[in-house]
Amino acid sequence: MFNPLTTLSDAQALDQSDPLRPVRDRFLIPDGIAYFDGHSLGPPSRAARQIQDDVVRRQWGEQLIGGWNDAGWIDAPQRAGAKIARLIGAKPNEVIVADSTSVNLFKLLIAASRLSDRPAILSEAGDFHTDRYIAKGVARLTGLRLDLVPRPELEQKVGPDTNILYLSHVHYGTAERHDIAAMTARARDAGALAIWDLCHSAGAVPLQLNQDGVELAVGCGYKYLNGGPGAPAFLYVAEHLQERLSSPLQGWMGHAAPFDFTDDYAPAPGIDRFLAGTPPILSMAALEGGIEAFDGVSMDSVWAKSVGLFETFRSLMADRCPDLVCVSPSDQARRGSHISFRHPNAFEICQALIAVGVMGDFRAPDVIRFGLTPLYLRYEDVWTAVERCADIVDSGGWNRPEFSRRRKVT
Amino acid sequence: MFNPLTTLSDAQALDQSDPLRPVRDRFLIPDGIAYFDGHSLGPPSRAARQIQDDVVRRQWGEQLIGGWNDAGWIDAPQRAGAKIARLIGAKPNEVIVADSTSVNLFKLLIAASRLSDRPAILSEAGDFHTDRYIAKGVARLTGLRLDLVPRPELEQKVGPDTNILYLSHVHYGTAERHDIAAMTARARDAGALAIWDLCHSAGAVPLQLNQDGVELAVGCGYKYLNGGPGAPAFLYVAEHLQERLSSPLQGWMGHAAPFDFTDDYAPAPGIDRFLAGTPPILSMAALEGGIEAFDGVSMDSVWAKSVGLFETFRSLMADRCPDLVCVSPSDQARRGSHISFRHPNAFEICQALIAVGVMGDFRAPDVIRFGLTPLYLRYEDVWTAVERCADIVDSGGWNRPEFSRRRKVT
Repeated sequence: MFNPLTTLSDAQALDQSDPLRPVRDRFLIPDGIAYFDGHSLGPPSRAARQIQDDVVRRQWGEQLIGGWNDAGWIDAPQRAGAKIARLIGAKPNEVIVADSTSVNLFKLLIAASRLSDRPAILSEAGDFHTDRYIAKGVARLTGLRLDLVPRPELEQKVGPDTNILYLSHVHYGTAERHDIAAMTARARDAGALAIWDLCHSAGAVPLQLNQDGVELAVGCGYKYLNGGPGAPAFLYVAEHLQERLSSPLQGWMGHAAPFDFTDDYAPAPGIDRFLAGTPPILSMAALEGGIEAFDGVSMDSVWAKSVGLFETFRSLMADRCPDLVCVSPSDQARRGSHISFRHPNAFEICQALIAVGVMGDFRAPDVIRFGLTPLYLRYEDVWTAVERCADIVDSGGWNRPEFSRRRKVT
Repeated sequence: MFNPLTTLSDAQALDQSDPLRPVRDRFLIPDGIAYFDGHSLGPPSRAARQIQDDVVRRQWGEQLIGGWNDAGWIDAPQRAGAKIARLIGAKPNEVIVADSTSVNLFKLLIAASRLSDRPAILSEAGDFHTDRYIAKGVARLTGLRLDLVPRPELEQKVGPDTNILYLSHVHYGTAERHDIAAMTARARDAGALAIWDLCHSAGAVPLQLNQDGVELAVGCGYKYLNGGPGAPAFLYVAEHLQERLSSPLQGWMGHAAPFDFTDDYAPAPGIDRFLAGTPPILSMAALEGGIEAFDGVSMDSVWAKSVGLFETFRSLMADRCPDLVCVSPSDQARRGSHISFRHPNAFEICQALIAVGVMGDFRAPDVIRFGLTPLYLRYEDVWTAVERCADIVDSGGWNRPEFSRRRKVT
């Protein structure tokens, strides 16, 4: 199925026949950069820059307060949510954009756990830390217990105590992917609700939330959705569950009639009840522009290219840099859209790569991650990344002191 | 002290001698608009537009993920907080920008109420509704009771049951202002903590939080701070209290070492612990640009002009439109920086004014508000507003059907 490349020309030929090749032109990527950090911060799309300009200059600048109605700012959370819904197999009225992933997870953990008296939140040890921190905060606030167990023990551990099972669909480090349908069913069979963190899968991995019976999820706007640094996050609640949940963050934007100034809090119908305060419109606008880069693109074609980039990367790396050990699953059904390698000097190698224009990132203690973002990455970029990596490793070039200091943000 | 104007030339003469006159040039205000909605959404400053362009084009566009360190995105919450601190009489390390006012109030209500076993949150009936909705959510979550009493009964009601007293410094409707020092002391004497909502005072009314013994406050970025639609909000915690409080929203950005990926949650030292998720950088950048419009401007000069605008407005309105009854306090120490008038047809008059370029806003059931924003408003604008209002009222011009429908957002 997969023909290993042997020359740069092979890579360029793959790019020539790539059906997503024209989509790269929707992005503004600096010359000379092979950008493998789209799993951390997607680059600006042309649409994002254009919408941003329009919001600042024309909408805010000319319509002023009128922009809330006239430019449709007030509907931005629902509008952006509906666009994301298509990418994750949800109905348009099941997704809303608001706040951050951390805050949205907080809302859903508390809202969902109120539906039962069961005492425990269950999750995976070693999963992304902000989710764990948030869950610990929820545990403290609600008196629920937080059980963290290694992945192989999860299925066994889901039981009559389990109120909520929350999991990252794709592991931020290794790219390991849970079987979202099976784990959701496992939770349901045990009488628990599952909440999925889709930060590392939305816009990258095929998702069919409705079809897979997923009821609750949160996810990030600034990774594969290309929404800009710190872009607002999203929140998904299956239609049938919406009216049964109430957000603990009862801000006015989630009220049934925010501008009626009523004394009592009445949650808005449907997904809107998960809004809290006034949404940050400039950041929302860039997110809308980022998601536009998916217009007309099927998630199947995105995933097919992700698989191609992965296989190319792994095979070239095994050949040219065998000291970097791939820790991402080889089974495509079990992984997300980044490829991770382990090396004792991963941090320094990562920094040396950045210095020569190959931008991946480091995750403690010893992992380099390369995000595989099919909308704009080329096979040529993969070729370049592996070549530069081989140069660095073969020459021991990472041993320079300037590569031993800096720290970065996801 | 105050000489009433009798002609447009009088107003223009006041503008000529206004020491803040050059500051108006820092803003981009459309021609022909008298903008009295700055208490709801400040207009873009030149700096905001410039920073916004720089963030999107150069920082995000060229530095990509590197922007977190190289462009200093990671420090934006503290940097913007320190700029706000100067405007509200706080130390730079006592203010941080994060999330929305609603979410920040939630954090402080829970964090502060944990310091005591007292059963009640106390506030004012008829205060801004998102605060009340949030407090009701907190009450449900924590089991605390929420007591809402009319303003005259507040002092009396603070007692041994009171855990937290939260209040809006300036009332969103009438512009009535609490004596922040006295009420904070009253709460403290009763063994309670006071939380202040500064949405309608930060950047407008002189504030000396440290000097007045204020310990906890939240406030808005998009009104008098000109941060753009839905700009992130701020949160103030007096230095001596910071280490005793823990946020219920334990996101990674509030962790002592967010990038160490530790298992346990350890709150960051100081004010940083009140961050939750990744901050929306594009919106943060515009806020930083908005606050820059205050550079070199003393809050005393801002307030002195606010008083001048208020007196001019009230006096002209009493003369030309006596049917609109001023409901804002005449005592400048008891009011904020907007002027509100009551009229049975307030909604329609407000819409008719907007149609002729005088942008104020309506608050149910019968109030028109005009925000007095000294950085960019002119006495000439006040003159225009009153003249147009008189034309509309004298001619019954608000009775046109197009003025009876639309709704707007604060």
